[in-house]
Amino acid sequence: MRILVPFEAADPKTRLDVVLDADERDGVARAMLRDVLRACLNAGHDPEVVATAPVEVDDAPVTVDDRPLSAAVNARLGGTAPLGVVVADLALATPEAVDCLVDAAADADVAIAPGRGGGTNGLVIDHRDFRVDFHGASYRDHVAAARDVDADLAVVDSMRLSTDVDEPADIVEVLLHGEGEAAAWLGERFELDAGEGRVGVDRVG
Amino acid sequence: MRILVPFEAADPKTRLDVVLDADERDGVARAMLRDVLRACLNAGHDPEVVATAPVEVDDAPVTVDDRPLSAAVNARLGGTAPLGVVVADLALATPEAVDCLVDAAADADVAIAPGRGGGTNGLVIDHRDFRVDFHGASYRDHVAAARDVDADLAVVDSMRLSTDVDEPADIVEVLLHGEGEAAAWLGERFELDAGEGRVGVDRVG
Repeated sequence: MRILVPFEAADPKTRLDVVLDADERDGVARAMLRDVLRACLNAGHDPEVVATAPVEVDDAPVTVDDRPLSAAVNARLGGTAPLGVVVADLALATPEAVDCLVDAAADADVAIAPGRGGGTNGLVIDHRDFRVDFHGASYRDHVAAARDVDADLAVVDSMRLSTDVDEPADIVEVLLHGEGEAAAWLGERFELDAGEGRVGVDRVG
Repeated sequence: MRILVPFEAADPKTRLDVVLDADERDGVARAMLRDVLRACLNAGHDPEVVATAPVEVDDAPVTVDDRPLSAAVNARLGGTAPLGVVVADLALATPEAVDCLVDAAADADVAIAPGRGGGTNGLVIDHRDFRVDFHGASYRDHVAAARDVDADLAVVDSMRLSTDVDEPADIVEVLLHGEGEAAAWLGERFELDAGEGRVGVDRVG
């Protein structure tokens, strides 16, 4: 399946600025993008980066589209073939998790993978009239949008797909469960801090 | 399958004290317990509450065991039948999610559902020598414990099982994705606050 991977190339991951400087945020964002592409490729799909500025990746085409994310995705919807959309900061993505989303779309017009905190981390769209809006509490908006166009909706239950990396607490999940490049990158710079309650992270050195 | 549901009956959910008083924490903890029991029952399993003090529930036996959680669970391990353990604060638990854990154990000695922040939210144990330790970063400890006793481990990828309700941000997930009693209870008291980034919650009224 063709899977769009939108990528914000300029000043990515701003909410990580309490623990990472601008160059580092750039580095981890690109590592996560490569992890997502690899997960899609290893599941046998055709990922395609839609970036706000040029970015170099192996094994996947890159299209530069400087419109906002939702507009750039919507410009590519409306065709007859199902189209996937997976956000670029899923450092826990695996081929199995990607296929969990793709398989859910077999019996639905739209499959959605909710992100932590009300976002949308993945969609497979097999309906001519469905459009995306990633702004704000997009999970609820996408559920409503599917209803509005009479699209059958499947919701995917995946911890890996729900874990987009936006905030320092998300780094914990990558250190614990990540298997890719971003996990290695973060593992060189952070260590788990296990006290009472949930585990945190500390900068190394 | 027999599934233990350990329940801390006295002063539960202390990390929610910034948004809920003691009576309310008690109320939501019991609502979540009933949601978990219902998910297990509706999946055809036999849940059994192991509580630190008497608690009234319908449709499931309650055993009072005042030992710490891990000791109370370990006292019930070592038999020949597989035994499930599911924490009592999974307000997003569904029969499908419970069966995702149970099914994962079909090809493994131990199946584990990681919780957000390094915890363990569910286990199915089919190995005589495996013991639990829920203290601290228990996910990593359980992975190591399985290796130490040569138990094959299956890790379950479920957003619903990973979402234990400990902190105010977790209430967002219940309002967005919950279908049970705790979701209704919280929905009467909180509303989503969708600004930039992840959605938060506000008290109603």
